[in-house]
Amino acid sequence: MSRRVLLKGLTIVTMNKNNEVIEDGSIAIENGVIQFVCETDAQTQDWQADETYEFTGKIAVPGFINAHTHAAMTLLRGYADDMALMEWLSDKIWPFESHLTPEDVYYGTLLACAEMIRSGTTTFADMYFHMDAAAEATKTSGLRALLSRGLVHTVPGDESAIADAVRFCTQWQGDADGRIMTCLAPHAPYTCPPEFLGKIVSEAKSRGFMIHTHLSETKDEIEQIKRTYGQSPVEYMLSHNVFSCPTLAAHCVHMDDQDMQILSDHGVAVAHNPGSNMKLASGVSSVAKMREKGIVVGLGTDGASSNNNLDMLEEARLCALLQKVTTGDPTVINANDALQMATIEGAKALRIDDKVGSLEPRKQADIVIFGTDSPNMTPEFNPTSNLVYSANAGNIEYVFVAGRLLLDQGKIISFDEQLAIDECRKRSLRLAREAKSN
Amino acid sequence: MSRRVLLKGLTIVTMNKNNEVIEDGSIAIENGVIQFVCETDAQTQDWQADETYEFTGKIAVPGFINAHTHAAMTLLRGYADDMALMEWLSDKIWPFESHLTPEDVYYGTLLACAEMIRSGTTTFADMYFHMDAAAEATKTSGLRALLSRGLVHTVPGDESAIADAVRFCTQWQGDADGRIMTCLAPHAPYTCPPEFLGKIVSEAKSRGFMIHTHLSETKDEIEQIKRTYGQSPVEYMLSHNVFSCPTLAAHCVHMDDQDMQILSDHGVAVAHNPGSNMKLASGVSSVAKMREKGIVVGLGTDGASSNNNLDMLEEARLCALLQKVTTGDPTVINANDALQMATIEGAKALRIDDKVGSLEPRKQADIVIFGTDSPNMTPEFNPTSNLVYSANAGNIEYVFVAGRLLLDQGKIISFDEQLAIDECRKRSLRLAREAKSN
Repeated sequence: MSRRVLLKGLTIVTMNKNNEVIEDGSIAIENGVIQFVCETDAQTQDWQADETYEFTGKIAVPGFINAHTHAAMTLLRGYADDMALMEWLSDKIWPFESHLTPEDVYYGTLLACAEMIRSGTTTFADMYFHMDAAAEATKTSGLRALLSRGLVHTVPGDESAIADAVRFCTQWQGDADGRIMTCLAPHAPYTCPPEFLGKIVSEAKSRGFMIHTHLSETKDEIEQIKRTYGQSPVEYMLSHNVFSCPTLAAHCVHMDDQDMQILSDHGVAVAHNPGSNMKLASGVSSVAKMREKGIVVGLGTDGASSNNNLDMLEEARLCALLQKVTTGDPTVINANDALQMATIEGAKALRIDDKVGSLEPRKQADIVIFGTDSPNMTPEFNPTSNLVYSANAGNIEYVFVAGRLLLDQGKIISFDEQLAIDECRKRSLRLAREAKSN
Repeated sequence: MSRRVLLKGLTIVTMNKNNEVIEDGSIAIENGVIQFVCETDAQTQDWQADETYEFTGKIAVPGFINAHTHAAMTLLRGYADDMALMEWLSDKIWPFESHLTPEDVYYGTLLACAEMIRSGTTTFADMYFHMDAAAEATKTSGLRALLSRGLVHTVPGDESAIADAVRFCTQWQGDADGRIMTCLAPHAPYTCPPEFLGKIVSEAKSRGFMIHTHLSETKDEIEQIKRTYGQSPVEYMLSHNVFSCPTLAAHCVHMDDQDMQILSDHGVAVAHNPGSNMKLASGVSSVAKMREKGIVVGLGTDGASSNNNLDMLEEARLCALLQKVTTGDPTVINANDALQMATIEGAKALRIDDKVGSLEPRKQADIVIFGTDSPNMTPEFNPTSNLVYSANAGNIEYVFVAGRLLLDQGKIISFDEQLAIDECRKRSLRLAREAKSN
């Protein structure tokens, strides 16, 4: 039975090809798919809806695409900050993570989903472990996600992790009415030696999976890979045919012109994580330059332990501000560029721009509604500018994914948020205790 | 008649000298002044309060001090963004501002106060014009502020603006039960020639007013002042005795070691505005280095047209993140440093650290209460880290100034917020029309 929903009276920031903004517009949704997006007029008034939302004065924007995160790391939020990278990882993060159970990952991911819904994210690209649990949590939450198990080479010859990742991908691909997508994730050049990497690429190619990886995040990585292989990390991945698969590469902070040209030539998409890159002092990615070269650049939060939130509004703002101050040019990455990166460019990076990323007919109804009756959203000269430079998560009132309401007047209605909070409080304390007694 | 208020069950981030954090603590307030801050025990239970707030599980932190803003510029939010500085000022900002009436400034400031209350600011240092209107709005809002009329030299020999600023300072100093403080504000080295500056300094010295100014914000300013006077902006201000008054200098982005030494030697305090400096591509202030040299550095938002919000949580986070990525050191400006700058260091910068900036006996009860039952505040390993790196304005539930509740369960109760929103919407459109027809 078909279900029709009509959203009315909105300022619609479509993020379509012409970056059209419609004042006093309507969005018609049938079975979770957008039917039309236009000015409210006689025709839209006549469209018979089962449910109508009067959203007069509010702003609609495509749901944000968090192009790189480790969702369950919400359990580590605030556990260790302001530390040098290797000390942070080896003394704090890894000992903690070694005790994570699938159930911990389930609740950690669910907490992440709650946080993402509240800050307007409708799709996220996740890379972690115990991914069946992460997939269950995603399904429960109502969000859309590209899920992957991070593959790190540990024991020579041991390919069981790859086999399990392939099993996970096959089992979950298309689950939850297509909201769950999967891919293979060689963790990074420095954790995937050639043979291991080759095996992953061969599985991805033969089964048609895309690749999600970390790439050129820190200066140390560049030096280490150059020392080991005589190549830049980008060249290393290229030479092992990673880029023959559709690839989403997180970070890409340290790259020379040749590296960028390789990404551009092979259609490698980048997930830029300004918050994490700043907090870990990794460096400043040349986002404006990459975009000039035609590279698709989406935005990600990275995990909550290096950010420390999963708020895409902040990433969009950080992205614009950081590019301006480091290039010395205030016109670089304007508000619309930043919002593109948080929406349609993110969708392209995940290769799902036929489905999401803009508010247009035939796309999934993944929609975020911002209230405007608050001081920080006043006046309303420019909705895009207000969203990127002034809004905060507290201004978000409604979130739809595939036409289903997940956040209703600021309350999560798709699952028990309080349970996720309570479980994560308890579990994070247990994990910290266990990590201490390592 | 004495009025006693008790806040109970809180995690109290005191920001006292030892950066003490009290779990399950109480704050006792009498006539707007803090009487004690300690763990909840038998003694605190016996303290007879007229009103008791059960705040179990929530976090209390000193109200933020916005050390530099132009409050009424909320009217220009989103009016012009992503432009080169001079084009932005001369084509957009100045034509708009030329039409501002005192009533516009009243409502623009009131809107700013609403936004600041919602994001946890309890004191702000404002520099603008039509300051009687700004003072009225501040009084209405319940906030605390250091107010000043920005003094720009226009007609040679005309000192009427200085005379009016002195009149304003004298008339309003100590108004609203001492919540309103005033000072003199020579706008900047490039708008205040020597004689004009000398006159202001002489008024400030003879009447005991402190100075609020802009200093070393852009490279252009440095070059212009060096060309005109053969001195750096800091040297120029020093040579005209500005620093013989207690001085609050906004920005201080471009300074060499000698400039910093001058600020340090003369006890000049700095208001660092990372959001504005990034958005306008002004540059990166050497905050970590200034603090090492013993310079007091507070945080400010600058005006809403160059930020575009007045959210001190964002400034604290931006400050830490920007220092880390530009120095390459993730340990620089940790969460506690950033929170100090937003609270007690800001109070020192405004010379009111005897009154506010920390939660301690004998200080004014300027207190912000954060809810923690939300995904982005979970888990609770480190309240300071959660506040600086993860919280957003939506987590703020209660705000007290001098013991008076201004924000109650997320609602402003000290004035009619909706009126400020409606008036500013209407007025900003009129001003844009008038600016266009210039």
